[in-house]
Amino acid sequence: VGIVGAGQLARMTLEAASALGVEATVLAARRSDAAALVCPRVVHGSPDDADALAELARRCDVLTFDHEQVDPGLLVPLLAGVAVRPEPAALGLSVDKAHCRRTLRDAGIPQPVFSVLDGADPLEQADAFAAGVGWPVVLKAATGGYDGKGVWIVDGRAEAAEVIEHAGALGVTLLVEAYIDIDAELAVQVARTPTGDQVAWPVVRTVQHDGVCREVLVPAGLPAEVTTEAEEIAGRVAHVVGASGVLAVELFWGGGRVTVNEIATRPHNSGHWTIEGASCSQFENHLRGVLGLPLGETTLRAPCVASVNVFGGADGTDPADRLADALSVPGAHVHLYGKAARPGRKLGHVTVLGTDPGAVRALAWEAAGLLGTAAPYGAIAEAT
Amino acid sequence: VGIVGAGQLARMTLEAASALGVEATVLAARRSDAAALVCPRVVHGSPDDADALAELARRCDVLTFDHEQVDPGLLVPLLAGVAVRPEPAALGLSVDKAHCRRTLRDAGIPQPVFSVLDGADPLEQADAFAAGVGWPVVLKAATGGYDGKGVWIVDGRAEAAEVIEHAGALGVTLLVEAYIDIDAELAVQVARTPTGDQVAWPVVRTVQHDGVCREVLVPAGLPAEVTTEAEEIAGRVAHVVGASGVLAVELFWGGGRVTVNEIATRPHNSGHWTIEGASCSQFENHLRGVLGLPLGETTLRAPCVASVNVFGGADGTDPADRLADALSVPGAHVHLYGKAARPGRKLGHVTVLGTDPGAVRALAWEAAGLLGTAAPYGAIAEAT
Repeated sequence: VGIVGAGQLARMTLEAASALGVEATVLAARRSDAAALVCPRVVHGSPDDADALAELARRCDVLTFDHEQVDPGLLVPLLAGVAVRPEPAALGLSVDKAHCRRTLRDAGIPQPVFSVLDGADPLEQADAFAAGVGWPVVLKAATGGYDGKGVWIVDGRAEAAEVIEHAGALGVTLLVEAYIDIDAELAVQVARTPTGDQVAWPVVRTVQHDGVCREVLVPAGLPAEVTTEAEEIAGRVAHVVGASGVLAVELFWGGGRVTVNEIATRPHNSGHWTIEGASCSQFENHLRGVLGLPLGETTLRAPCVASVNVFGGADGTDPADRLADALSVPGAHVHLYGKAARPGRKLGHVTVLGTDPGAVRALAWEAAGLLGTAAPYGAIAEAT
Repeated sequence: VGIVGAGQLARMTLEAASALGVEATVLAARRSDAAALVCPRVVHGSPDDADALAELARRCDVLTFDHEQVDPGLLVPLLAGVAVRPEPAALGLSVDKAHCRRTLRDAGIPQPVFSVLDGADPLEQADAFAAGVGWPVVLKAATGGYDGKGVWIVDGRAEAAEVIEHAGALGVTLLVEAYIDIDAELAVQVARTPTGDQVAWPVVRTVQHDGVCREVLVPAGLPAEVTTEAEEIAGRVAHVVGASGVLAVELFWGGGRVTVNEIATRPHNSGHWTIEGASCSQFENHLRGVLGLPLGETTLRAPCVASVNVFGGADGTDPADRLADALSVPGAHVHLYGKAARPGRKLGHVTVLGTDPGAVRALAWEAAGLLGTAAPYGAIAEAT
């Protein structure tokens, strides 16, 4: 298998590939990329570089991705020699949020009301949209965003104008969406084979701060009808998208409805807990899915799982220097990605399994805290 | 960390190192070694090559091992620049079975009656020993053996003479041991830090055929007083050996006694089940131990675990070609080591977790069978 991109998702996929005896090659933009540090087969180059992609494709039977910063058009010439999975059409939905919204709308998937600002006067379009749904509205870059980047909540025409002008200068198409007062954010990972077999892990609750996921909690702690609906919607989305491998479906619970926020046709931060928390991890099932192998079981290994992300400290703290402290926390599964520490950079995560939701969460935050990542909320209890 | 040797134990240790963000380098005798295939930092050379060892030592802070085919004398010059863990004295016990037997005897550890055939007339010595304990007796090479190689059960003086002559020609010292009528073979993995903290995983039952371990079963299925004694003995052995990292203690249950068979100061085939079956695996705890990090919990993740080894088929079957079949078995965790298939070569293992010992064993054998490794016994039930 060849992986376009060499970040932490590729690194954790390599760990699963090693166990299965699957040979993997990564395309790395930098020698210091998380996966390039642990892989002997590296093609060096940008994901925008057709030659590098061709070289990667030449070295493998199946091509997959650790991010969606790719141009699906560059993949078309490769299709004669290599299987691209997720398939380019599915990948296109992950790359282009406007295309995704339209496709999911046409399939009847519940999502926020939206409009693509691709007319002659996007500001006028946004203003008219807001007149219908009310301010604030959400402006989103159709391409290129991640971790809250490329998303703006705007309160009125003046603010919208600023974002639209900026995006216009960069040639980026925007979407406008109705703002949803969110009670909780949820995520479901679905794994799928090229022949359409699908399995899903239980829905999780994700807790964001400043647009970045801070923790993932299983079970989601919401009424059964909400979690069932989320899982049912995610299954339908996976069917519509038709991507081999793992699909991450991020959802909102708010205004009494479950709606789809975003999708990613790859393993996702919201599924890192599956490494220890589920029988088969998202990384192994991504490999199984893209390679057309039977999918593994997604059953929980413990009633409760909490996974907390670890970031570089504002004071330059490197979690790697504090590994011993974190490993002293009973049951803390510490993952560090080998990336150079920079303030705010996502450098690892900690997962804890157990029987009590509060206890696993407290232990995961304790270990993360020892690694230099304190809960950004006033108190941990705030988000529950 | 630097690992002397690049077999499957090193490969699985690398998977744990990647997760912890620990940089690892391996010393590989061949480019096709299991761990060399998945590691970007490889020193090429034999473990007997002082220059190669020095180069590995130069590249790391802690040196450890994936086998005991090393000459502890070669490590002494390295000690100025690198921590060698297990410590050379402990490693020496793993390398030299005669030294190990004497050390454990002096510490009062129960083991078979033995004698080291290092006198002027080893045959006479063996004969006198057998006159005391009765034929058959077990002859063992003090160094170099593994997987049943270097062990001979001999029925009388003529047979013994043949082995002794052969060993003499090779310059290998032999031990003679009383033959024990074995009811079951057991193994305990113990992890230890340089400061003497120790944790142990539950005792397992190992089932051998032709001297090679075929399957590992947890729980061991023996009376509690037997398993408790085995765990207690293993803890004492670990204390005597004093090796940082994982120590595997193989034991016999036979003649109404638990006795120590062999030890290995490294992760061991009898502990592969811990990857999925325990909270912290032997590979992660080996790293934690040799790096002086706090040890992880050894609690079971399920009441029952079965792990079955996978070998190259006599007809040249490569399990890698049958991966899809094996992954269709529900709950089968398949590990393949990336090694070239040869008849009888150990190429992988399958682990299954569950609540019923018979069910997990049947599923593990089903997956192994689909990979081309059928149970070598008349029926699976034979060994239970």
